[in-house]
Amino acid sequence: MKALVTGGAGFIGSNLAARLLAAGHEVRAYDNFSTGQERFLDGVRAAAGFSLVRGDLLDERVLSAAAAGCDTVFHLAANADVRFGTQHPRRDLEQNTIATYNVLEAMRANGIRRIAFSSTGSIYGEPEVFPTPESAPFPVQTSLYGASKLACEGLIEAYCEGFGMQAWIFRFVSILGEHYSHGHVFDFYRKLRANPAELAVLGDGHQRKSYLYVQDCVDAIFLAMEKAGGRVNRFNLGTGEYCEVNDSIGWICEALGVTPRLVYSGGTRGWIGDSPFIFLDTARIRALGWQPKLSIREGILRTLDYLRSAPWLLESRA
Amino acid sequence: MKALVTGGAGFIGSNLAARLLAAGHEVRAYDNFSTGQERFLDGVRAAAGFSLVRGDLLDERVLSAAAAGCDTVFHLAANADVRFGTQHPRRDLEQNTIATYNVLEAMRANGIRRIAFSSTGSIYGEPEVFPTPESAPFPVQTSLYGASKLACEGLIEAYCEGFGMQAWIFRFVSILGEHYSHGHVFDFYRKLRANPAELAVLGDGHQRKSYLYVQDCVDAIFLAMEKAGGRVNRFNLGTGEYCEVNDSIGWICEALGVTPRLVYSGGTRGWIGDSPFIFLDTARIRALGWQPKLSIREGILRTLDYLRSAPWLLESRA
Repeated sequence: MKALVTGGAGFIGSNLAARLLAAGHEVRAYDNFSTGQERFLDGVRAAAGFSLVRGDLLDERVLSAAAAGCDTVFHLAANADVRFGTQHPRRDLEQNTIATYNVLEAMRANGIRRIAFSSTGSIYGEPEVFPTPESAPFPVQTSLYGASKLACEGLIEAYCEGFGMQAWIFRFVSILGEHYSHGHVFDFYRKLRANPAELAVLGDGHQRKSYLYVQDCVDAIFLAMEKAGGRVNRFNLGTGEYCEVNDSIGWICEALGVTPRLVYSGGTRGWIGDSPFIFLDTARIRALGWQPKLSIREGILRTLDYLRSAPWLLESRA
Repeated sequence: MKALVTGGAGFIGSNLAARLLAAGHEVRAYDNFSTGQERFLDGVRAAAGFSLVRGDLLDERVLSAAAAGCDTVFHLAANADVRFGTQHPRRDLEQNTIATYNVLEAMRANGIRRIAFSSTGSIYGEPEVFPTPESAPFPVQTSLYGASKLACEGLIEAYCEGFGMQAWIFRFVSILGEHYSHGHVFDFYRKLRANPAELAVLGDGHQRKSYLYVQDCVDAIFLAMEKAGGRVNRFNLGTGEYCEVNDSIGWICEALGVTPRLVYSGGTRGWIGDSPFIFLDTARIRALGWQPKLSIREGILRTLDYLRSAPWLLESRA
């Protein structure tokens, strides 16, 4: 396989690139380094079969040239900031919806027929069914991020039908692990590092969330692409459990040996568009033989270990 | 009500504008006249409370100025061409998805909180449930048009959640009636007018489709906005029946007094992304007290009468 990995210097993309290279594939990483990190590529930069293109997905010319010669696209680049969507609505439209359109057009221009896409459990909005299956009732969007990912899914599906492409769409819960640089573990760790005596928590701490370790996520992506042969293949990815934000805080504080005073902002949601309960039905991917190796707690602790080993990362995103 | 009607010189928009004016509301029609027609406004142009802005939805400045002072938006402007989507994929992205984003931003800039939106039954793709309810299982998109309307729905919903707006989303079957200028009745009539001896038909003629008369459609929109008070209100609009393309051909030929030889292109779909069976469950809008006044057959015959009275329209779209 010769893969174009958009967001290849990002959290999931850099891990996926390393795994592809280890499996003997060629990888062309495409990244604008808006949130990607040079250092995430330290382990792959020297590998045979690795190349890097610095470019933005909104630059159609550079993107299409980068896609030349590839046979598979892993489209992971995105604005992944759910929380501040209402502060800059155009960002999700441009970096997710329009960027995905550009990826599909670059594929079409280069005769590339296979795409794996990182969607999100956020597209279920606030579902009525838990755990939420891929065939959940037609959801109502509650965040600009979810809405943009839904738009991407629709575009990808229509391109599959219209242009004979094949897609694997993965609706992720929050992903954890090495190169994690965005999300609640990051925020809590950074705050506790600055002040171990107090921790500000958005919402009431009872929000129920799901997480998945990045290597388990990559395992699932590879397995699905090997075994699922439909035109459009959609998979939820998550563990078979969920936790409360308060559980996560407990594990993090115990690991760090701190006992902060917890200051809740209150309310059942952390922010506008925050879903108070995310728990995906993963029977479909499990039926292919996949199961996660790390529990949510183990994933959080692994992430914390990583962040403690990478102080440069916390400083880079101050 | 002071309403901004996008696509106000179009098929549905011009009918809706006339009805709003007749009910005593003010109407600002917004149209770029790409498919809208000056003559569709003949009945409203002189009305007190009517104004027209010539503008494109991609021109954010003109749009936002046009929205000033309005309290409700009827967003009907769209690229409604399902069939040729794969020939110009950018058109659905720009004229539907990005245009809708611009409408929402113009609303936000002007403090407008209410939007009615013309979505489509095409967003159900090729559903497994008939008649298809609003809560159908999460659909797979099969057309760029459907995908773009799905993206619009998601954007509107996220704006409702994020910015306190309220939306009425209508998933239309094909609409028929006065000012109809696009679709199978138009195509068949134009072809038979040119050559009554032969009619080329896309597919095998057994595609099952649903249609609704435009005044019934407008009735439903007004009723839903009066009676449905949720943040996001989604309604299928259609009659309680469907017909085969062959049925429609029979009614049209009988009315015209022609007996053409039918030449089928073959296959169960008329084109890529064509859904071979569209039949929407309209229990939700019926529960509010609505029912259509015309059957599909009556709607088709009414449309044919209109087209026969408007030869200029057939010529304008040659």
